[in-house]
Amino acid sequence: MHPITAVRVNGLPCKAANEVVAEDFFFSGLHMAGNTANKQGSAVTAVNVAQISGLNTMGISLVRIDYAPNGLNPPHTHPRSTEILTVLEGCLHVGFVTSNPENRHFTKVLAKGDVFVFPKGLVHYQFNNGNTHAVAIAALSSQNPGVITVANAVFGSEPAISDDVITKAFQVEKNTVDWIQAQF
Amino acid sequence: MHPITAVRVNGLPCKAANEVVAEDFFFSGLHMAGNTANKQGSAVTAVNVAQISGLNTMGISLVRIDYAPNGLNPPHTHPRSTEILTVLEGCLHVGFVTSNPENRHFTKVLAKGDVFVFPKGLVHYQFNNGNTHAVAIAALSSQNPGVITVANAVFGSEPAISDDVITKAFQVEKNTVDWIQAQF
Amino acid sequence: MHPITAVRVNGLPCKAANEVVAEDFFFSGLHMAGNTANKQGSAVTAVNVAQISGLNTMGISLVRIDYAPNGLNPPHTHPRSTEILTVLEGCLHVGFVTSNPENRHFTKVLAKGDVFVFPKGLVHYQFNNGNTHAVAIAALSSQNPGVITVANAVFGSEPAISDDVITKAFQVEKNTVDWIQAQF
Amino acid sequence: MHPITAVRVNGLPCKAANEVVAEDFFFSGLHMAGNTANKQGSAVTAVNVAQISGLNTMGISLVRIDYAPNGLNPPHTHPRSTEILTVLEGCLHVGFVTSNPENRHFTKVLAKGDVFVFPKGLVHYQFNNGNTHAVAIAALSSQNPGVITVANAVFGSEPAISDDVITKAFQVEKNTVDWIQAQF
Amino acid sequence: MHPITAVRVNGLPCKAANEVVAEDFFFSGLHMAGNTANKQGSAVTAVNVAQISGLNTMGISLVRIDYAPNGLNPPHTHPRSTEILTVLEGCLHVGFVTSNPENRHFTKVLAKGDVFVFPKGLVHYQFNNGNTHAVAIAALSSQNPGVITVANAVFGSEPAISDDVITKAFQVEKNTVDWIQAQF
Amino acid sequence: MHPITAVRVNGLPCKAANEVVAEDFFFSGLHMAGNTANKQGSAVTAVNVAQISGLNTMGISLVRIDYAPNGLNPPHTHPRSTEILTVLEGCLHVGFVTSNPENRHFTKVLAKGDVFVFPKGLVHYQFNNGNTHAVAIAALSSQNPGVITVANAVFGSEPAISDDVITKAFQVEKNTVDWIQAQF
Repeated sequence: MHPITAVRVNGLPCKAANEVVAEDFFFSGLHMAGNTANKQGSAVTAVNVAQISGLNTMGISLVRIDYAPNGLNPPHTHPRSTEILTVLEGCLHVGFVTSNPENRHFTKVLAKGDVFVFPKGLVHYQFNNGNTHAVAIAALSSQNPGVITVANAVFGSEPAISDDVITKAFQVEKNTVDWIQAQF
Repeated sequence: MHPITAVRVNGLPCKAANEVVAEDFFFSGLHMAGNTANKQGSAVTAVNVAQISGLNTMGISLVRIDYAPNGLNPPHTHPRSTEILTVLEGCLHVGFVTSNPENRHFTKVLAKGDVFVFPKGLVHYQFNNGNTHAVAIAALSSQNPGVITVANAVFGSEPAISDDVITKAFQVEKNTVDWIQAQF
Repeated sequence: MHPITAVRVNGLPCKAANEVVAEDFFFSGLHMAGNTANKQGSAVTAVNVAQISGLNTMGISLVRIDYAPNGLNPPHTHPRSTEILTVLEGCLHVGFVTSNPENRHFTKVLAKGDVFVFPKGLVHYQFNNGNTHAVAIAALSSQNPGVITVANAVFGSEPAISDDVITKAFQVEKNTVDWIQAQF
Repeated sequence: MHPITAVRVNGLPCKAANEVVAEDFFFSGLHMAGNTANKQGSAVTAVNVAQISGLNTMGISLVRIDYAPNGLNPPHTHPRSTEILTVLEGCLHVGFVTSNPENRHFTKVLAKGDVFVFPKGLVHYQFNNGNTHAVAIAALSSQNPGVITVANAVFGSEPAISDDVITKAFQVEKNTVDWIQAQF
Repeated sequence: MHPITAVRVNGLPCKAANEVVAEDFFFSGLHMAGNTANKQGSAVTAVNVAQISGLNTMGISLVRIDYAPNGLNPPHTHPRSTEILTVLEGCLHVGFVTSNPENRHFTKVLAKGDVFVFPKGLVHYQFNNGNTHAVAIAALSSQNPGVITVANAVFGSEPAISDDVITKAFQVEKNTVDWIQAQF
Repeated sequence: MHPITAVRVNGLPCKAANEVVAEDFFFSGLHMAGNTANKQGSAVTAVNVAQISGLNTMGISLVRIDYAPNGLNPPHTHPRSTEILTVLEGCLHVGFVTSNPENRHFTKVLAKGDVFVFPKGLVHYQFNNGNTHAVAIAALSSQNPGVITVANAVFGSEPAISDDVITKAFQVEKNTVDWIQAQF
């Protein structure tokens, strides 16, 4: 979709207007369940500017999220977007935490048809504490929202954050940190 | 949700931070079909800042759209947002038209799980030319996107746009205009 | 003005700073009347980033609009801008229509020296119902505002929007639609 | 237009939607020449959010500028907008200066119908070095662009900038500064 | 500074222009060391719109950060800003981690006079692994940037995030989670 | 840092993500005093997108300013940013002037640790009227804020602004203008 791969700008380069086709605004397959056979028991199928080039500069994108029973979309932030989510199937326990110093934790149990908002940049999660598969559709206020999974960023970065930093930040012992880091 | 109703600002006034509760980010009922027993055979259920006060300044909103067989979400624009839509059930013929002078018409037939983008401010529509009910979820890049249904704005405004303007703009005779206006 | 024609970005590429000249900020000829010998009896002379490359990223542009007696600048929207217009000669009947559900129609008769605002993205028009030529200067809040003439987008797109959509949207019979489409 | 005068927000408070009338988008009198009987021989008639409340948040405004022979719209900046100007009558010598370190001075002599752009925040001026009255219409990319006339800000502030600062900044003697300050 | 405390808008209400005084743009005391006698061994002194009301809508703020030997400004994000930091005294080991899936960890050891950028919304930290007190000044691209300390948000929210979520997200046992939560 | 020098866009082109290194976010040397042996007795050391390519699109930058005794950072504007300044050493007399028609002059004497804000686009200055060297760090709300020194733009542009314009704008005689221009 982006034939001029040698030039990167703020966002992405655009096609010439007369070469644009309907497929540049199209994606197929959001009805398919993602594979939740992983440690977290969840799967995110993203539809953003990487999948639909016509979203470039448009300020919006979608995701489908699948949750196995006990599946978790673990605490994360989107550095460039707000999220609004609706439950298509099943039941989700969701929450977000406000910034310092209050760190207030807002939570809600969502059933089918419920909608919840995760404000811009805040840490949030969804957890399927039911017995059945759950599915949600969420929209994000950027064509390239980014995802920072807290555990991955803190314990799974490449290279690792030093033990000195992690043990102090989380007030844990070095062998606990090493054990956690080995999971990521 | 907005107790200070006497003051209107750019957007809406906010609650005091310590009075905010989880319900300010919540809406219920998007799994319920809208009533499509109308001339267009479609129904839009909106979830924007009018329904969820916590969306204020957040730059995003959702809608559910129901379509009876032959149901149409007629040509319209959103003056302040892009739209991204995914089909949950059924099949939709969708399209948008680019601005002058090309007025190119991009169309696609969407099945379940397909996603399509309607770029900011362009005239677009969805038509259910199948035999079954169809359902879509769409996201919009504003908490207050606005909807301008072309036929309503042009033929159904209050008061009406004068016959002189309409007959010239659409190159039709006065009695045709009067007949169309009577439908809106 | 834009020698690097093979690369298209969000907006347009810029010249090197040391190659910029005064002519990059200049346009000539806005005192010349446009040719109103057309069906609508009006002509728009645009001065935007396509005419003045120095407007790139600057968020503003101008147009001159000429109106023959009974000339109409037909209902249209600008997907990316507000408009502010002032009458230089003659007299204009102008209006805009707000979004759903009210579709309120605000109108005013403007004489020489009057100024009117058409808010961002709303359908608006100007009609010269006087006996003399009229002229207006309008400014738009984008260097690339776009113009969507409602009749052209709905009845004159390439390819055409299907009869099923148009007849339902405007509640008219198929032969009326065909007749209107033949005008565009 | 703004009955809630006790509350000031980012911009201005808005009227209730159902109280808005066409006059909120209207201004009259831009065809009238401003009074150029002053030291600079020029007059600016502004049409921004102070004159048209409906411009609030709309990102655009207009001015009419009248110039007596030898009239000058002296060097100034707009802290929040770009300007695009067109000459309606007469002839103007115009210019702007780029930022440090180049301080390049771009100039052009404009005749009737010519258009020129003054990029955001740069020092610019227009000078009528002809024998006849000149008139221009200019548009600005903010509903509240602000005007900083360099001489007024530097030599005419209230209270005055100290002689130590001015003499050093302009490398002039104290009595020259005092003499200039006495003019403003 | 903000006498109209009953109205909250997007940002904060403004004073009347004629009541503004120089003190509205002023703060005193950034030369004073913060108290680092806490678990993390660091202290942040903020100068944003809460301290200087004249920063409202201005898009910038400052902080001073003091670090005891082995002091840590623990991993955190700013949901609404980029940060640029310069070291005034001592030596800091700093880093940030990019978003999924790479989670690349960029690090640098900074000496006096070094400057480093933490891009918008990313997890970042500074650690004083030297033997002396360290001091930094940092600027943020918002008058109200917000701070989300990862450990506080995840382990110290009020009320707590459930053990089910934390144990799964961090792949640790319940008693480890309980122990960490007891620290916050 | 920007290998694709043949293409200039709105801002600057970016490196490929996998080629980015920590040095792209780094600058060294802000602890070094600038050379104040010049007519104004001040020196600005800038750290913006020209020095740190990773600041591209990030909306922030820093400067260090050194002032000899009687040193002046002369009246100037930043066309694209607000400034917030803190004094590290010495004492500064600072001020800014509001736009027309009030041209109010807000001033303050700043000691070590004091902070002051210069709102977006306004003319401002700092003057060291003490006996010792002074140092400040300031942050600007753009990665490319621009600097327009009033005296340089008005009296030192290349080519010069005509005597007709300057004498009228500043109400001074031609030989005074010539003398001032000779200093720049």
